[in-house]
Amino acid sequence: MRVAVLGVGLIGGSIGLAAGRRLDAEVAGFDRDPATLARAAELGAVDRAAASVAEALEGAELVFCAAPVGALPALVGEALERSGPETVVTDVGSTKRGLLAAIERADGAGRFIGGHPLAGAETSGVEGAREDLFEGARWYLTPTERSQGVLYDRLQRAIAELGARPQAIDAAAHDRLMATVSHLPHVLADVLVSEAVDALAEESERLPEVGPSFRDTTRVAGANPAIWTDIFASNAEAVAAAIDRLVERLSESSRVLRAGQVEAIREWHGRAREDRRRLLDAELVGGPLSELRIAVENRPGTVAEIALALGRAGVNIEDMALYPAADMRTGAISLWIAGEEEAERAAEVVRELGHAVSPPEAGS
Amino acid sequence: MRVAVLGVGLIGGSIGLAAGRRLDAEVAGFDRDPATLARAAELGAVDRAAASVAEALEGAELVFCAAPVGALPALVGEALERSGPETVVTDVGSTKRGLLAAIERADGAGRFIGGHPLAGAETSGVEGAREDLFEGARWYLTPTERSQGVLYDRLQRAIAELGARPQAIDAAAHDRLMATVSHLPHVLADVLVSEAVDALAEESERLPEVGPSFRDTTRVAGANPAIWTDIFASNAEAVAAAIDRLVERLSESSRVLRAGQVEAIREWHGRAREDRRRLLDAELVGGPLSELRIAVENRPGTVAEIALALGRAGVNIEDMALYPAADMRTGAISLWIAGEEEAERAAEVVRELGHAVSPPEAGS
Repeated sequence: MRVAVLGVGLIGGSIGLAAGRRLDAEVAGFDRDPATLARAAELGAVDRAAASVAEALEGAELVFCAAPVGALPALVGEALERSGPETVVTDVGSTKRGLLAAIERADGAGRFIGGHPLAGAETSGVEGAREDLFEGARWYLTPTERSQGVLYDRLQRAIAELGARPQAIDAAAHDRLMATVSHLPHVLADVLVSEAVDALAEESERLPEVGPSFRDTTRVAGANPAIWTDIFASNAEAVAAAIDRLVERLSESSRVLRAGQVEAIREWHGRAREDRRRLLDAELVGGPLSELRIAVENRPGTVAEIALALGRAGVNIEDMALYPAADMRTGAISLWIAGEEEAERAAEVVRELGHAVSPPEAGS
Repeated sequence: MRVAVLGVGLIGGSIGLAAGRRLDAEVAGFDRDPATLARAAELGAVDRAAASVAEALEGAELVFCAAPVGALPALVGEALERSGPETVVTDVGSTKRGLLAAIERADGAGRFIGGHPLAGAETSGVEGAREDLFEGARWYLTPTERSQGVLYDRLQRAIAELGARPQAIDAAAHDRLMATVSHLPHVLADVLVSEAVDALAEESERLPEVGPSFRDTTRVAGANPAIWTDIFASNAEAVAAAIDRLVERLSESSRVLRAGQVEAIREWHGRAREDRRRLLDAELVGGPLSELRIAVENRPGTVAEIALALGRAGVNIEDMALYPAADMRTGAISLWIAGEEEAERAAEVVRELGHAVSPPEAGS
């Protein structure tokens, strides 16, 4: 099989590596940045570094467009224009509806099937490319009524062979889903940070310490501005709708608080606890997550000591958060472990190291 | 000095330990739960386990009320009633205005000075009590015009000797500040989780995978329901006001998105980046935080290996987040390191282990 990869950063490079080794494909690559393309060739992510999009497309049966969201309409359009009637073109962008609309009238639009792997968005650059980046990852595909069955079948098989779990989804549903679980958290982090800076400036001359809840909630504030501005803009309607629904919920919370309805507060907060557990459990194979709270000295080596002991005991850490105290010398560590037995074993291991552990608690 | 501690959980127990060792005080303790009180005595957190509040108060110059927020009005009232005119009474609750209002008409209300240490809220129970829990921690004090100078002076000195950094603040300002940096993030986590569960139930039969941004933003959703319901209720007006301001910001974001104002989106997102950096830098001694992104296999031992190597190199990890990929076998780790040189050294250490590291990037 001949595969073309247009854009060979982290995602494109990883597709190239996996396609070469797992699909036994001949991979032609192109990138607007010659240095990136050369490096991709050096790393074996592409077999052939093409001098143009057209050259990369020669004989390709499968084309991956792996550029930033804002650059995709033009790139996908060019790929469709310069490829033959048997070639399936896909992309890896975070939003789908705008792209589909943009290329709707292009010749061969029926050969485009949108794609979105939920992997690797947290690092960038071809240096991070890995053959196994997509192993086990959900990879959404957004076929339309115009999509040819034989092309969808080819794409879907290839995605599965790259190691991912393809799933077809309507483009609009995909965008609404991402608006809720990915884009909305980013918006919230942004507005919360800005609200805090403005509100606190009124209260005191210097900004006060913020707690671990603030740190966690705002960790993605202002993430990768170039990428995220494009994502927000390309999914504006769905994100705005998600914001509007959240505004309704927040207004109701505000009303309940002002009315002093303690039972309603308890119910809303308790429900959130259950809801988060359901969401996180949904994606786990090893059983529900348990949280271990460990009181520690926040000195070099403490995290290592704990993680190492757990590693020796064969316990995997699914998620972790550090809560340094104000002095940055003491604090707490939360570890999330999948499976109750695993969690109990982990608690025992940590206690044997002499740390105080809050008993494993179901959920998080 | 004689100190009484009413309620000897994590905070009360730690106050007892620190008062005994650092103030050379004789510490009398009381707790409604006899087992907790006995354990506190065993751990050396109290010198004398009293059979009643009155007995604990005998001869005390300084009284710490360390009960949950909802129990404080009655407890502080009793402490004022049963202690002499030279005794200063304080508390450690997360909100201050409601408590002050509740005891306003109590005899000796002028001897009460509210307190709130920003420490240790993330673990619970006397087992976690430590002498150094408050080392370097901000400890807000909320004197009023009725507070006697000599009592404030005694309290403030004692707090400093416990290792904390006392700071006087108006009770209403304190509650507004906490509403923004602590209570509001909890409300947001709650509503985001519930919104996601409802919205996603409409899109698909099973809940989809959620990304790292969702995990981070909702980590405190439904935290300690008993404690948090009380906190929300006791700071209802300030939290509602913070929610209302956030609703305005969110509505503006929604408007900007719908209007397709890409430059406004870029500006808001970029501003959030700057704002978070300012907030986090404000509390650091070691210089601005840098983030290192490390691509890893998410197997037992990886975190340990990295943390251990950094420990050997003398680099401390201020904050950490794991981003497991969908297969839970690969992923990325973010480390936040204080100080640019430290961060560069850390990146080098991690690279030497063979992991790909995104170049240290200022801010987070």
